[in-house]
Amino acid sequence: MTTPAHTTVGIVGGGPAGLLLARQLHLAGIDCVVLEARDRTYVEHRQRAGILEQGTVDALRACGAADRLDREGLIHDGIELRWNRRSHRIDFPALTGGRRVWVYAQTEVVKDLIALQLTDGPPLLFEAEVTAVTGAETDRPVIHYTHEGIRRTLTCDYVVGCDGFHGVVRSAIPATELRTAERTYPYSWFGILANVPPSCDELIYAHSPRGFALHSMRTPTVSRLYLQVPNGTDPDSWSDTQIWDELQSRFAIDSDWKLTPGPITQRAVLPMRSFVTEPMRYGRVLLAGDAAHIVPPTGAKGLNLAAADVIVLARAFADWTATGTTAGLDAYSGTCLKRVWRAEHFSWFMTTTLHTTPDQSAFDTHLQLSQLDRIASSPHAAAELAENYAGLPVG
Amino acid sequence: MTTPAHTTVGIVGGGPAGLLLARQLHLAGIDCVVLEARDRTYVEHRQRAGILEQGTVDALRACGAADRLDREGLIHDGIELRWNRRSHRIDFPALTGGRRVWVYAQTEVVKDLIALQLTDGPPLLFEAEVTAVTGAETDRPVIHYTHEGIRRTLTCDYVVGCDGFHGVVRSAIPATELRTAERTYPYSWFGILANVPPSCDELIYAHSPRGFALHSMRTPTVSRLYLQVPNGTDPDSWSDTQIWDELQSRFAIDSDWKLTPGPITQRAVLPMRSFVTEPMRYGRVLLAGDAAHIVPPTGAKGLNLAAADVIVLARAFADWTATGTTAGLDAYSGTCLKRVWRAEHFSWFMTTTLHTTPDQSAFDTHLQLSQLDRIASSPHAAAELAENYAGLPVG
Repeated sequence: MTTPAHTTVGIVGGGPAGLLLARQLHLAGIDCVVLEARDRTYVEHRQRAGILEQGTVDALRACGAADRLDREGLIHDGIELRWNRRSHRIDFPALTGGRRVWVYAQTEVVKDLIALQLTDGPPLLFEAEVTAVTGAETDRPVIHYTHEGIRRTLTCDYVVGCDGFHGVVRSAIPATELRTAERTYPYSWFGILANVPPSCDELIYAHSPRGFALHSMRTPTVSRLYLQVPNGTDPDSWSDTQIWDELQSRFAIDSDWKLTPGPITQRAVLPMRSFVTEPMRYGRVLLAGDAAHIVPPTGAKGLNLAAADVIVLARAFADWTATGTTAGLDAYSGTCLKRVWRAEHFSWFMTTTLHTTPDQSAFDTHLQLSQLDRIASSPHAAAELAENYAGLPVG
Repeated sequence: MTTPAHTTVGIVGGGPAGLLLARQLHLAGIDCVVLEARDRTYVEHRQRAGILEQGTVDALRACGAADRLDREGLIHDGIELRWNRRSHRIDFPALTGGRRVWVYAQTEVVKDLIALQLTDGPPLLFEAEVTAVTGAETDRPVIHYTHEGIRRTLTCDYVVGCDGFHGVVRSAIPATELRTAERTYPYSWFGILANVPPSCDELIYAHSPRGFALHSMRTPTVSRLYLQVPNGTDPDSWSDTQIWDELQSRFAIDSDWKLTPGPITQRAVLPMRSFVTEPMRYGRVLLAGDAAHIVPPTGAKGLNLAAADVIVLARAFADWTATGTTAGLDAYSGTCLKRVWRAEHFSWFMTTTLHTTPDQSAFDTHLQLSQLDRIASSPHAAAELAENYAGLPVG
């Protein structure tokens, strides 16, 4: 593949945000290049989120990237909450006027978008390590990167950082121009993949005196489960039996429901963090997805927020190339941050309602249980959860 | 007044909970005696809450104690929220199917109930200081008290502690039988009464970078205002001008609305606390109102929770005297605690959404503003606030 020395939109990062943006720009006739630091196999196999909101699915469909999603994705019309040995279902379509979510792993979204881009799309370079972005405040920002052992530059009209929390593009913006807000949590998620059909049709979010647990799935034959664990937990310090026993006790309710164990094929401990950097644009450098904001995984907002960012951004670039207006680009940061803070609040709400802190007081626990009881008894409280979970309209 | 040596229900505390309970029992033909440690003037003038929920008003009407309330009480169909120099009204009847609140000070409720009881009611002794309650686990608990310099005892079928957070009745229950949950807050309310017509028709709850402020009223000519201040603030350390200037700046919005200052007639600093003791019954001793639970004042739940307790309790006593069943009394604690925890959660929510902590982070502030923005944009979020504020059905 030959790489141009100039492109309209230089995209750093070949995760779902960068790839979806490239696809949308390509269909709008806008030149772009995607530079991804890792190799294709790595990118296609890093385990991340697995829940797609209606708005994310709509965007994938609109750019022709949803054929396999529509065949293999699992439509979910609700989730189950468990607490105090009882359970309550949240019915998304009934509470939101028809919205729903899809279970389809981020790895699969990425595979689909990569395959599309490599056959019908703008340049996508793997193992292209960006070392710096310069000239944010000029008309021609430059991406400096190394590819196949050669130092190269890519001059752009705009640079978009889709390179994640640890990405390099954010550092192209002077620190004095950025405000950050963050929160860390005194617990992590211990996630496993297991070759066993899920023990439930829908996701189960469980509050228990032993801590939070989540039963999710990847496919009809692969289960994905999470346990709240102390920060710094070594995933190899638990035996398979310990993991299944602990999951079983956290999901326990007063019924004969049982969790079916199976071979564990992957295990990892994920830290929890809330992080927002503002503004999401400086000069001709823009940030999208995890490069600008991180949510804890409770509530499944991370991937969907990234998708919403690039949907807004693709529209803004389309307006700019069509008419020369920068109104959409100028409004990008403000438009996205409203949704970002809504998602940050919701993710914090879900996290703090369901997890147990090491210094949890009786008062804390009663507040959580009262909130969960309220969700089970008040249509408004249930709808507030459902609308946020299933996803608010993009834009 | 002669005091009997025995009564069916001995009520300790002549605040709104004890007086409303006595009134309800009297109308149900159940003997009771109310013992109040303070004199009548003190009880009738201690400044407390001023917002009555629909259910509280219904109960006062049902026992003939609402004539003056219905003449002089101010019906409020909403509150105003302010943040980020904007305002948003919460319309209670529209969001709750017709529920509303009344502005009518606790002092006035107490005056009305005392006047009724002294002309047509069971014994009400002022300056009757209860020193102990014994025999909670027997059929005949005993209230030990001092009145007019003489030590006396009152033998009861049941004793109800309506004697507040610092009351003596709770100590009749073995500490090993009680569980408590509590939360303190790193701020207090500086409350003033001022002889000036309110600058607004409805209450204003204001979030501001300088801290929380509340504009309330007692009558069409008396304003009641509150400022969040650090714990330990000396109310006399502020000049009147400082108080009005600070209020003005916290209520500031982008309009020509102005706060009208006036002569300040009372000032006091009130600590904020959440506290719940469980169960609310042990043997033949029952707790009601502040004796069992305290809420921070944001959300105006304290007086209304006390009223709800004694409404449930009066029904339970009526069932017991009519049929001999103790089912209502046995269920009392569980029935009330559900409502108590809902109110504790709501009061905590209102408090933490609107106040600024000394170590407030940018993340904390953004969560608050996102929550307030959501209330202003989502009918479900607004209804969730309105239903809790206007009051859930009793029972």
